[in-house]
Amino acid sequence: MDDSNTQLTPLSELGEFGLIDKITADIKTINKTTLFGIGDDAAVIKPKNNMLTLVSKDLLLEGVHFDIMYTPLKHLGYKAAVVNFSDIAAMNGKPKQLLIGIGVGAKFSVEAIEEIYVGIRKACEVYGVDLIGGDTTSSASGLVISGTIIGEVEKDKVVYRKGAKVHDLICVSGDLGGAYMGLLILEREKKAFQANPDIQPDLTQHDYLLQRQLKPEARTDIVDLLAKEKIVPTSMIDISDGLASDVMHLCKASSNGCVISEEKIPIDQTTFDLAKEFNIVPTVAALNGGEDYELLFTVDQNDYEKVNNLESISIIGYMTDVSEGERLITNDDTSIELKAQGWDALKKKD
Amino acid sequence: MDDSNTQLTPLSELGEFGLIDKITADIKTINKTTLFGIGDDAAVIKPKNNMLTLVSKDLLLEGVHFDIMYTPLKHLGYKAAVVNFSDIAAMNGKPKQLLIGIGVGAKFSVEAIEEIYVGIRKACEVYGVDLIGGDTTSSASGLVISGTIIGEVEKDKVVYRKGAKVHDLICVSGDLGGAYMGLLILEREKKAFQANPDIQPDLTQHDYLLQRQLKPEARTDIVDLLAKEKIVPTSMIDISDGLASDVMHLCKASSNGCVISEEKIPIDQTTFDLAKEFNIVPTVAALNGGEDYELLFTVDQNDYEKVNNLESISIIGYMTDVSEGERLITNDDTSIELKAQGWDALKKKD
Repeated sequence: MDDSNTQLTPLSELGEFGLIDKITADIKTINKTTLFGIGDDAAVIKPKNNMLTLVSKDLLLEGVHFDIMYTPLKHLGYKAAVVNFSDIAAMNGKPKQLLIGIGVGAKFSVEAIEEIYVGIRKACEVYGVDLIGGDTTSSASGLVISGTIIGEVEKDKVVYRKGAKVHDLICVSGDLGGAYMGLLILEREKKAFQANPDIQPDLTQHDYLLQRQLKPEARTDIVDLLAKEKIVPTSMIDISDGLASDVMHLCKASSNGCVISEEKIPIDQTTFDLAKEFNIVPTVAALNGGEDYELLFTVDQNDYEKVNNLESISIIGYMTDVSEGERLITNDDTSIELKAQGWDALKKKD
Repeated sequence: MDDSNTQLTPLSELGEFGLIDKITADIKTINKTTLFGIGDDAAVIKPKNNMLTLVSKDLLLEGVHFDIMYTPLKHLGYKAAVVNFSDIAAMNGKPKQLLIGIGVGAKFSVEAIEEIYVGIRKACEVYGVDLIGGDTTSSASGLVISGTIIGEVEKDKVVYRKGAKVHDLICVSGDLGGAYMGLLILEREKKAFQANPDIQPDLTQHDYLLQRQLKPEARTDIVDLLAKEKIVPTSMIDISDGLASDVMHLCKASSNGCVISEEKIPIDQTTFDLAKEFNIVPTVAALNGGEDYELLFTVDQNDYEKVNNLESISIIGYMTDVSEGERLITNDDTSIELKAQGWDALKKKD
């Protein structure tokens, strides 16, 4: 499912510096804070006086975070950038500068790396981010993509995981569980292909779910929306591990308990339908699936009206005293303990 | 050559969040600019008003950048941090905040990762750097260490690779070629051990060279020294690829040619002696060995007296017009073309 093998350029032909020159030849920066990007020992940023600087990094490893067999390289590059942007959105900030380090095996061609960069640069273009650092090295094993994102946020607008208070409303953007269902489709088609390579997968009817998995977006639009509505969340996180695990991160950091209503969890119809096909309870995909990159946040009860009027936001529960623990009110009105069975990169087997 | 296998804790026992908790439990930050370190979606920095922010990242991959067989994990952690610090020194800045991402195979124990962090934290302590981000994930293959360093420099003190002028003096700190000789010793002892595991390597007489390879230092002390002497270099780079390759980076970025005097290249006696034992011309180790992490910089001729009086700095040549190319004056007074055969991470075979 990779590029065809016609006229590919082996990496050794260009070497490290040649490759960097080729990839970075026409990169332009757009943010005034970016003084110097690629081409020196470090990039140089001139932070704005009233802004805080946010920094985060994410490591994507082949065989752990992605399967090269069904991941188009362009989408992989896009996703590698976007998951970093999402971390900045989770602080109520905007991503501004991205650095990418790539380790590639000998089998990789120059064209394959360029394809990854097409995706990275597309993401930067869409989100108004400058690519200010690139480092490509050989890898003795799988593909490694390491991203670092620099963002900015006004001093009084930064939102941490800590900060939620008892009675604060728990809100989530968009819908959940879709990325996980997309993964299940891809894994199913991979197995079918391995069993019989003559069968071509038909993925057309699953566009939305595949996009959720392969080409997610960071909800910087929600950051803008909250600013427009003059809402500063009391705590926030992006949903990378799954709703259950991530709401528990907010509870732990804020020393709260919580109550989540199963019926309030936003699930797209396509996620719902496919979950039934896979014999999975849709809520389980939302609670434990992960990789949705939606924003999970809490707001003061006084912001109820404002938040309730926003179409892209769902209020799914509220914070409680830490002594009350983390609870899920199921659709049949039973209160059960919320359990995180989200994705743990160290416990995963494959 | 790794830890013994008594009572090691498998990673799966702790999981990702447990491990992060364990490693980061007692981390304190010391820089006032560090508002929030480990424990959220992003770290938060409050840059000083008159300072520029420097950002760089380095990816270290097992089997490419290091051999786990002879690299003590503690030293590996130290080096992973220091090579990042060195990039900031190369901009005439000081490193302030470090983020580390680690990918580890299933064979790794909790104790092994803690050992890497002992080295990382030691480096942070020595250089006054805050560890503000940590991310540990499983790796389907080798050990991956990805570092991102944030540094600061006064607005009018930042030094780029570009900026050197014709007649500027080319200077280098410390001595060169030692890290490469250290690598040759380690490779030789590894081969001897593989041929006959009963023979224990005797490395005691090679302390200096092994340290140059396994536990290098970043020359932030030279940044301080230059500031004290009121010298602002016109261009600067750290020597990671080898003197030849790195001086050519300065020439290319500054649109200059250069003349380097072989006899002026600083080489330690231990490097010199061992090079002879290995039948290598010592200068070749200095020119092409790499990983010395010394600073290579140019200064205006007016700074000659100041620089010449500094014991830890050698003046090894001068910049010329780009039309004159890059030249090496050998010890027998012949002018030859300078060639970079430095380490290229994409061309290296092993």
